[in-house]
Amino acid sequence: MLEAMNRTLHLDLGERSYPIFIGPQLLAQTQYYRPYIRARQVMLVSNETVAPLYLDKVREALCDYHLEQVILPDGEAYKNLDILTRIFDALLEKRFNRTCCLVALGGGVVGDMTGFAAASYQRGVDFIQIPTTLLAQVDSSVGGKTGVNHPLGKNMIGAFHQPRCVLADTDTLKTLDDRQLSAGLAEVIKYGLIMDATFFAWLEDNSAQLLARDPEALAYAIERSCQCKAAIVAADERESGQRALLNFGHTFGHAIETGMGYGNWLHGEAVAAGMSMAADLSVRHGWLAAAELARIRRLLVALGLPVEPPAELDRRRFGELMAVDKKALDSGLPLILLQAIGAAAVRSDYDRRLLECTLQGDVPMTGS
Amino acid sequence: MLEAMNRTLHLDLGERSYPIFIGPQLLAQTQYYRPYIRARQVMLVSNETVAPLYLDKVREALCDYHLEQVILPDGEAYKNLDILTRIFDALLEKRFNRTCCLVALGGGVVGDMTGFAAASYQRGVDFIQIPTTLLAQVDSSVGGKTGVNHPLGKNMIGAFHQPRCVLADTDTLKTLDDRQLSAGLAEVIKYGLIMDATFFAWLEDNSAQLLARDPEALAYAIERSCQCKAAIVAADERESGQRALLNFGHTFGHAIETGMGYGNWLHGEAVAAGMSMAADLSVRHGWLAAAELARIRRLLVALGLPVEPPAELDRRRFGELMAVDKKALDSGLPLILLQAIGAAAVRSDYDRRLLECTLQGDVPMTGS
Repeated sequence: MLEAMNRTLHLDLGERSYPIFIGPQLLAQTQYYRPYIRARQVMLVSNETVAPLYLDKVREALCDYHLEQVILPDGEAYKNLDILTRIFDALLEKRFNRTCCLVALGGGVVGDMTGFAAASYQRGVDFIQIPTTLLAQVDSSVGGKTGVNHPLGKNMIGAFHQPRCVLADTDTLKTLDDRQLSAGLAEVIKYGLIMDATFFAWLEDNSAQLLARDPEALAYAIERSCQCKAAIVAADERESGQRALLNFGHTFGHAIETGMGYGNWLHGEAVAAGMSMAADLSVRHGWLAAAELARIRRLLVALGLPVEPPAELDRRRFGELMAVDKKALDSGLPLILLQAIGAAAVRSDYDRRLLECTLQGDVPMTGS
Repeated sequence: MLEAMNRTLHLDLGERSYPIFIGPQLLAQTQYYRPYIRARQVMLVSNETVAPLYLDKVREALCDYHLEQVILPDGEAYKNLDILTRIFDALLEKRFNRTCCLVALGGGVVGDMTGFAAASYQRGVDFIQIPTTLLAQVDSSVGGKTGVNHPLGKNMIGAFHQPRCVLADTDTLKTLDDRQLSAGLAEVIKYGLIMDATFFAWLEDNSAQLLARDPEALAYAIERSCQCKAAIVAADERESGQRALLNFGHTFGHAIETGMGYGNWLHGEAVAAGMSMAADLSVRHGWLAAAELARIRRLLVALGLPVEPPAELDRRRFGELMAVDKKALDSGLPLILLQAIGAAAVRSDYDRRLLECTLQGDVPMTGS
């Protein structure tokens, strides 16, 4: 019965293809890992928050292997080269060879760092992702982007490196706090907005179930999100074109995150406000119907997400924060804008004055 | 006339293919770089020894680009993540974007670090290699291996990342000291030994010209070496099989380098003694004729290279240093051994007692 709820998705990337398993009780079941581990030596990487909750289950499932572990501090502030070195130290102290396997157990930070360590250790070893936040399950664990932050920029140092498999165990979402759950749902909504109107409508109909953490509703939302992302990544693994659509809401969102200081607004919260702003700008150009903007804002609010940027953030500074530098914005910073719910495009032909209106919050476009 | 001396080689790696230019006066000629730079922003990376000699020439040739530079300290001791960070710092402080290009001007350390920085900056940007030592020209600049050392192991952190082109300017060898020149020739001899008897014979006939730094002789030696390495790398980019032959002499050699402390014996010197030992072991099994061992030792000596391991290095410890751990050696550490000059194979079926004899220097096999 529980088995029947598990869903499997195949990300098609030629010889780098891999399965994504979604459902409850995956962690404890060895059959989801074993076929994808070609090694005897397995290094478990987790953080101080997640390890006490789930690491023992993973250790049990993998008890036949030569297991070692490294526990990192929890938080985006530790996603840097210094902390990354701890993974290399552990691998070398334990004499791990080129045929070893790393297992990332945690949210996006653990996944991104473990993935980059796997990409770089002896010029590339295997790794497996076990994302334990909704955001990581629907976003960072699909697509092979790995890396760490630099004081001057997020994710500036990294590699494209695909995992051998991904286990999205929906049971791990039970311990997620409400704010983190909503932040993850922001990225779920994003997939509906950029490419799947039917999924968006399903989210509207199932927002109560999602907030109540109904396992079947969550599993479907994760599956559909991963399918959307997988389709885009398979078509554009190295982000030379279509993959940019995944950044919908993110240019506005990054400005909010930077302007407020990382950690004050969660990434998903900033993206939610950013998507609302991108939709507002789309309406101002007549590219999106005002009624659709109202639907978008209603769903965001229903799922506990913001639809306006923080009042504390000066609107004049917002424009500056959106681009790496002022010149880039003047010369046409491309933005992802909507033509309809379910249809997005990269556009540089927007009106700079209408962008100013969106930033200023002039002339409310809907009564949300 | 000088133009006619330049040689071009194409390394065939599908969409990652690139040319290697070999000859005098390449640095100052923009046509060797320009077609391979897709960027406006170019970051020059060099070290304190090489920059004063050649950086101005490169800057002049690339004066149309937005040039920045970062100068690293010189030496294997600085090939680590800490110093690597200086390249990332420079790239981010100068706001270099994903379409920038890095240029490595220096020996193997500069090349390996710049290559890894290029592999990791924003998950991968272009780079160009300008190797200025013979060792780098015939070895590290071909094949796309990049990386840094960890206190517990050489080249343990890195990536496979191919340059856009390589400029092996033979004029830069004029400032190389004699010991470095000979150390580079050790790797040149290696190619003859593992796959090209004719080239080995050419080296025997031209050892005086090479030591006298005859430009045409050096250019030919570099070209033939790069051709040999290119053929192996094209067949096995990720080192799953044949590429292991390039490690001929290196298992013995690494034991010498580690046992003596890095820097006391140059890498090429340790490899020379290691090749001599591997050939000795091959003779003890009857796989190689004793007369061929004598030829090998004569050529090594003629080119200023050692044929015996350092007397200070305890022979019992040597065996331990050869393998990562004792168990690996007992269970058959694979070694590259010779069947003839020009023919090598990976073998695990050698006699452990004969290896002991080679390490002990028992019963000299030739009168060298």
